[in-house]
Amino acid sequence: MPYQLRKNFKLFTLNSNPELTQEIAALLGCEMGKSSITRFSDGEVQIHLEESVRGAEVFIVQSTSQPGYEHTMELLIMIDALKRASAETINVVIPYYGYARQDRKASSREPITAKLVANMLETAGATRIITMDLHAPQIQGFFDMPVDQLLGETVIAEHFLNKGLENAIVVAPDNGGLSRARKLANDLDVPIGFIDKRRPQPGEPEIVNIVGDIQNKNAIIIVDIVDTADTISKAANVLVENGAKAVYACCTHGVLSGDAVQKVEESALTELVVTNTIHVSEEKRTPKITILSVAPLLAEAIEHVHNEKPVTPLFE
Amino acid sequence: MPYQLRKNFKLFTLNSNPELTQEIAALLGCEMGKSSITRFSDGEVQIHLEESVRGAEVFIVQSTSQPGYEHTMELLIMIDALKRASAETINVVIPYYGYARQDRKASSREPITAKLVANMLETAGATRIITMDLHAPQIQGFFDMPVDQLLGETVIAEHFLNKGLENAIVVAPDNGGLSRARKLANDLDVPIGFIDKRRPQPGEPEIVNIVGDIQNKNAIIIVDIVDTADTISKAANVLVENGAKAVYACCTHGVLSGDAVQKVEESALTELVVTNTIHVSEEKRTPKITILSVAPLLAEAIEHVHNEKPVTPLFE
Amino acid sequence: MPYQLRKNFKLFTLNSNPELTQEIAALLGCEMGKSSITRFSDGEVQIHLEESVRGAEVFIVQSTSQPGYEHTMELLIMIDALKRASAETINVVIPYYGYARQDRKASSREPITAKLVANMLETAGATRIITMDLHAPQIQGFFDMPVDQLLGETVIAEHFLNKGLENAIVVAPDNGGLSRARKLANDLDVPIGFIDKRRPQPGEPEIVNIVGDIQNKNAIIIVDIVDTADTISKAANVLVENGAKAVYACCTHGVLSGDAVQKVEESALTELVVTNTIHVSEEKRTPKITILSVAPLLAEAIEHVHNEKPVTPLFE
Amino acid sequence: MPYQLRKNFKLFTLNSNPELTQEIAALLGCEMGKSSITRFSDGEVQIHLEESVRGAEVFIVQSTSQPGYEHTMELLIMIDALKRASAETINVVIPYYGYARQDRKASSREPITAKLVANMLETAGATRIITMDLHAPQIQGFFDMPVDQLLGETVIAEHFLNKGLENAIVVAPDNGGLSRARKLANDLDVPIGFIDKRRPQPGEPEIVNIVGDIQNKNAIIIVDIVDTADTISKAANVLVENGAKAVYACCTHGVLSGDAVQKVEESALTELVVTNTIHVSEEKRTPKITILSVAPLLAEAIEHVHNEKPVTPLFE
Amino acid sequence: MPYQLRKNFKLFTLNSNPELTQEIAALLGCEMGKSSITRFSDGEVQIHLEESVRGAEVFIVQSTSQPGYEHTMELLIMIDALKRASAETINVVIPYYGYARQDRKASSREPITAKLVANMLETAGATRIITMDLHAPQIQGFFDMPVDQLLGETVIAEHFLNKGLENAIVVAPDNGGLSRARKLANDLDVPIGFIDKRRPQPGEPEIVNIVGDIQNKNAIIIVDIVDTADTISKAANVLVENGAKAVYACCTHGVLSGDAVQKVEESALTELVVTNTIHVSEEKRTPKITILSVAPLLAEAIEHVHNEKPVTPLFE
Amino acid sequence: MPYQLRKNFKLFTLNSNPELTQEIAALLGCEMGKSSITRFSDGEVQIHLEESVRGAEVFIVQSTSQPGYEHTMELLIMIDALKRASAETINVVIPYYGYARQDRKASSREPITAKLVANMLETAGATRIITMDLHAPQIQGFFDMPVDQLLGETVIAEHFLNKGLENAIVVAPDNGGLSRARKLANDLDVPIGFIDKRRPQPGEPEIVNIVGDIQNKNAIIIVDIVDTADTISKAANVLVENGAKAVYACCTHGVLSGDAVQKVEESALTELVVTNTIHVSEEKRTPKITILSVAPLLAEAIEHVHNEKPVTPLFE
Repeated sequence: MPYQLRKNFKLFTLNSNPELTQEIAALLGCEMGKSSITRFSDGEVQIHLEESVRGAEVFIVQSTSQPGYEHTMELLIMIDALKRASAETINVVIPYYGYARQDRKASSREPITAKLVANMLETAGATRIITMDLHAPQIQGFFDMPVDQLLGETVIAEHFLNKGLENAIVVAPDNGGLSRARKLANDLDVPIGFIDKRRPQPGEPEIVNIVGDIQNKNAIIIVDIVDTADTISKAANVLVENGAKAVYACCTHGVLSGDAVQKVEESALTELVVTNTIHVSEEKRTPKITILSVAPLLAEAIEHVHNEKPVTPLFE
Repeated sequence: MPYQLRKNFKLFTLNSNPELTQEIAALLGCEMGKSSITRFSDGEVQIHLEESVRGAEVFIVQSTSQPGYEHTMELLIMIDALKRASAETINVVIPYYGYARQDRKASSREPITAKLVANMLETAGATRIITMDLHAPQIQGFFDMPVDQLLGETVIAEHFLNKGLENAIVVAPDNGGLSRARKLANDLDVPIGFIDKRRPQPGEPEIVNIVGDIQNKNAIIIVDIVDTADTISKAANVLVENGAKAVYACCTHGVLSGDAVQKVEESALTELVVTNTIHVSEEKRTPKITILSVAPLLAEAIEHVHNEKPVTPLFE
Repeated sequence: MPYQLRKNFKLFTLNSNPELTQEIAALLGCEMGKSSITRFSDGEVQIHLEESVRGAEVFIVQSTSQPGYEHTMELLIMIDALKRASAETINVVIPYYGYARQDRKASSREPITAKLVANMLETAGATRIITMDLHAPQIQGFFDMPVDQLLGETVIAEHFLNKGLENAIVVAPDNGGLSRARKLANDLDVPIGFIDKRRPQPGEPEIVNIVGDIQNKNAIIIVDIVDTADTISKAANVLVENGAKAVYACCTHGVLSGDAVQKVEESALTELVVTNTIHVSEEKRTPKITILSVAPLLAEAIEHVHNEKPVTPLFE
Repeated sequence: MPYQLRKNFKLFTLNSNPELTQEIAALLGCEMGKSSITRFSDGEVQIHLEESVRGAEVFIVQSTSQPGYEHTMELLIMIDALKRASAETINVVIPYYGYARQDRKASSREPITAKLVANMLETAGATRIITMDLHAPQIQGFFDMPVDQLLGETVIAEHFLNKGLENAIVVAPDNGGLSRARKLANDLDVPIGFIDKRRPQPGEPEIVNIVGDIQNKNAIIIVDIVDTADTISKAANVLVENGAKAVYACCTHGVLSGDAVQKVEESALTELVVTNTIHVSEEKRTPKITILSVAPLLAEAIEHVHNEKPVTPLFE
Repeated sequence: MPYQLRKNFKLFTLNSNPELTQEIAALLGCEMGKSSITRFSDGEVQIHLEESVRGAEVFIVQSTSQPGYEHTMELLIMIDALKRASAETINVVIPYYGYARQDRKASSREPITAKLVANMLETAGATRIITMDLHAPQIQGFFDMPVDQLLGETVIAEHFLNKGLENAIVVAPDNGGLSRARKLANDLDVPIGFIDKRRPQPGEPEIVNIVGDIQNKNAIIIVDIVDTADTISKAANVLVENGAKAVYACCTHGVLSGDAVQKVEESALTELVVTNTIHVSEEKRTPKITILSVAPLLAEAIEHVHNEKPVTPLFE
Repeated sequence: MPYQLRKNFKLFTLNSNPELTQEIAALLGCEMGKSSITRFSDGEVQIHLEESVRGAEVFIVQSTSQPGYEHTMELLIMIDALKRASAETINVVIPYYGYARQDRKASSREPITAKLVANMLETAGATRIITMDLHAPQIQGFFDMPVDQLLGETVIAEHFLNKGLENAIVVAPDNGGLSRARKLANDLDVPIGFIDKRRPQPGEPEIVNIVGDIQNKNAIIIVDIVDTADTISKAANVLVENGAKAVYACCTHGVLSGDAVQKVEESALTELVVTNTIHVSEEKRTPKITILSVAPLLAEAIEHVHNEKPVTPLFE
């Protein structure tokens, strides 16, 4: 690996994605920063940096995946420890920045948790954010520090190009995801379609209508997050019932909560492609689920930031 | 009008929407706050409050419509004057909060002006924002003070209900506006459709495909902002060419820049409905353009805030 | 109840101490504020205020007891929701403010979590803190807003006075707790003693020497927090072995983690007195454990704050 | 030019003074930073940095000359873009910092715009100000970041020394400008005088009395700003009527608003000397007006800041 | 006294001007707030509020007169105590806001202490400033909270009008004070003059030339501050030597440091008029020195602020 | 001395400890930074930096010892001057950080001066604190910047080890100091004892009871601060009366206010050991008082910070 790191470079992991961070460290050819995270008897976490970070340019990797509050607080406390230990800069790599459901007041008298957490990160002492596929691009504006946002789509598009699927169509599972679908369709050079849905009762989506020609086609459903897998599994079934040859789904962030994996397995889906922005536990690693690594992308971004090279080429 | 205002209530206008503010004042049954905005010989604006605001609950009405920088700076300077003159609270009513094109980093190395202006308003001393139809709901999160967002759609839906259009369909002119279209369609109890577009070159939209049955129907195009009117006039033409009986368009914010009005007049559109969140100058008031007033909605919101009643009923 | 509450008073609970809050509400003669805390499928908490708080003086009750991060984040998110919903003041009642082990850098390269959380509360929008028995009095200085600190000792002293123990002595279980012991001894008008300990290895206390005459006395061990109950159960055993007639222990905050309750039951302790600043779950309610309620104390403090009466008489 | 610039040095211009910035770049021997400032159809300005500034020490040149609000907002937005694009430092060179008329509350209930703009610059992310001849020296205190203030007087004094005027006297046109006049008089080693004025009605100055011997002398009127040229042209006429041989006027900031140039031409003035802190448009470049360049002074200041050499020698 | 004060009004003094505060309290018809300022053995000041200020609108009177650092720190600590004791607003009445010599960088590498102290007051928790005759009007802009500035001149002008001096002229002792002289001259309806001075060596003024006709006139020298009395005593001597009948001097702030009083007594001055914005100690109260009280002016300002009436009429 | 300092290193002293700073400079092998602190006639201090600090890593040494307010304000003003003069970092070395008596609200309605001063230091522009023996470890949390705390105990322990006292015991003079005593006892490998005291009236301590065997032993009393010397001299007398062979006392911070030195001389104490964190004036240097220098410790800490080496080894 031709990466050049200066002496003051430090890469730490917390508890959300230690394997991903290991992979990044290996790609960068650096040691992992030494720290211990232990628990007092009452459950309180104790973070201790086991090496000096005085004057260092520190990168910490932590997603706010579940348990989200714990991962968030761990991150804030780590930043506080680094700041008090005289780190020069604190670059926070958040592969999955959650709180997507609360990035606006969906109804009145609700919090905007995604902004609150952004404020917390600034108050704690973070100096830069590197993240992937924010739920809304406006979330970048929640921060007043530099935010570098990478896109999982490159990794995903490469996967499907390698696969050599013929006769494909990209399908957005609902009204909101058309621009994302359009982008993947451009990369794969295939047409798009979408599924128009009504929600007569809040919380209970009802699939209405398929737009676009899916007959005998390999449909690729794309979303940013797969949580319960309800949307994609229902969409897959509808697409197959309506003539699709096979249905694939893909996303950057595989939350896969509840019985999501089971739903995927039982659905008409052929494959679900996720990345490792959220750690996928062993029991969720079933045959239908393909996990792509974003480590090369993040390693390159970190190296570019460290060496003050533009990050733009990585996502444009 | 049964509105009850306490003695310390003050309503000021600046230069973007004096007529709208007059209308609000009339509805509330209050005097307008007295202030002068004059110019020094070098063009610098001088704001002078001509009555005491000590201890007052002040509301200022100002959109950041064109000339946007001037309206924005006027507003910031007015807030500074009010703060230094000991106003108790400074409630900023921004019917049209512009900077919509820069509410995120559309490409790398760009500003997020909508956040910058939010920060400026906070720094200057604003204590609350009342606004309408933000371009993205996440913009509420750009502020750390309370933001009450009203929707022009109620006013618009009422207009079309009163009109008694039969055989209607709501059409989104592109991928991004489907949820807005869905909401109006629900209010009018009619189906929806949309126009799928590719943008082979940035900036030059190319209409691709009409989704939904528009044959012999009254199509209602809904967008949040009409700027050049390019999108809606082309969409109207395409819809008529493809069998629509008549095409109406509507939006909350009628920017109507350049030759927008001419385009509307020359297009297949039957009517363009806008509100007065942005002042529509005399020369833009052509037969096809209908202007609805948001003054009743804003007056009610102001009164609810003043009397600490919930604002939610006004938009839910 | 002679408490007078104005119309704009609101009292909300979160998940740490709903029963305590109910008790406070009953004492104050007010309704509980309506809010829902539900969870999305991915575990993210959704807070929704189900009544208007516009212009209200809001009190929220929440300890940062275990699960501490969850309770802390819930509180921060609730404050954000209240701020955005235009609450006039946000008074945070934290019966147990944890993070006691990290209120200073115990060794180098550690966080000061108790300060971090104080900063978070200020950033989120809290305007006042009401709390009990901070681990160190300096923690008040971590906040730049008013902090009213109440002491569980009044409640505890009253308990032992009612009990009518004769021939008692207050014993501090280690070097650091002598001033607390002195205060209770004054209130009960009895002598004090203490147990001098060495800690040859960190984490593993070794009892050294009993100072003070405990022969045939009723020894009362006082500490601020009982966590593993290791300290007090060992101390009780040592005291009994050295001639004490009976040993009682008391504290404000009963963390009671791990097998603390079992240790208490198996120790020479006659009684352990705790308060309900931390909710004591059913399975921890064994015969030896007495739970005193701080609801009357907190209710009175809240009423004093609400009616702008001095809080000082409640703890001096 | 022996200037040494490191690789991370970047110099950008905005729209107020592109020619001055070009001149500075030429003196420094560096390329201009590439950026585009285009306009959307609605007039909103779009700033795009066309080269990476990651880790760079950036200098931006922009005066807040007319149109002042536009130039100010352009500057703030540029700073936001630079901050988000990870510039290391953002050094703002403001040759003319306007808002001089509102650097204090001239009467009650007025803004202090000069402070508001200082706050905006800090909030946006500026890290240093380099400016010239602030209207009041206290304006430096409006900023909490380093401010380097240069003086146009050196350039002006050099001009008159080169000219070799004999029998000269420096004249302040009113009560307030005596210290400035004294300083130039010292540099030129000539006596001073002043014109005592009453203002019976606000806004309408009435010249009263000439103090000092001007008979057959070359009078040099000095002010910091020439705006309408009313003051200096009337002063010139009075001086000539009272026996002065010839009258010259000079200032750092040539606002020259309205018919200022015409007034100068029609007055008894022989020459008006201004600098290019404010761009002088072609139509204002008449024979009587001499424009001195501050580019050498600013270039040297920028180089000193860049290489951490003291700036003091440039103005003492 | 017809002043109406609400129950939550509190007026406290610190150590700079207890007599002035007493006088204000008597005029307002209120009790003084009870507080003790004692000293620990090491000289550290201990401030204790002896009555509740919960919810109160507090006014504190303290000048930063000598010992300036002590008075400033006392004030900051008092504000901290009030903030932590839940005062609703903290209105700081600073009759004399010193640090006048450092309200700008007089030469490079100097502090701007007047701004630093303004920042300290804001950080400590002050919510409003009431002050008199700032050395430069721009100092108002050092604060981002409301500043009400009163002028001692009304009191002074009234004194000279009552005196019935005939044949008077107001004289500014140097270049910088002409506008102040002009204002008093207008109020007394008399002409003005001034003394032009060169300063060949820094610190050692040399009187040059008297402008204006002072023959057989009662000259009134006006300055904002009398510190060493060097300027006014030398000016008085010069004026008398050049034909003035008698010379009076007046200022708002009588610092009177060193042997100022002796200089006044030994000079040609007939009378020096100061106000009590700075406490004049017994030994400085010589026959030539007249002390006017600003208590009526401050009392009225405080009452206007308290009752939210405009303060403007008091100084315009 | 093998210390390596880069060119941009600057060490300044203020008025509290010039000799200590000289000693540090000598140990580091650097020149002292040149600055002048003069006084205007009214007592106001004028700080002037006589050399450029542009881009420098500056260390300033100043304790807040008496006169505490003066030393504190001097420090704040110096920081302001450094910030405005473009220092890169401002590292504040505060050997003695006073305000120990007000690091918490000892009773209600009191300030927390130690936090206020921490806030002032942050607002003024300090970027790091190096200090010794804070009165409470929580004071580190009053700062949000890095704080390196050194301990005088190493220096003190070394002194007693060199002395070779046999048969020693470390004695804490009251309840609160047991952990400090335990630490020194461990370093000297001797037993500990303590004196139990009641305070029937606030301010007037009454010695009650000696715990531990002191018969014929060399007792070493350890405290953090010796102020009036009341505590240690009474303790010494009591210890001798009760059989101690000789009594020594030691502390890091020798405030020695009032007649402390006389008390020490007249007491049963054999020796009082202090360090020079507070300058000990000539008249306090009596035979019984030994002064240890912390210059080697501080010099090493400064060098470690400057060269980004861990500071931990210096105090663990």
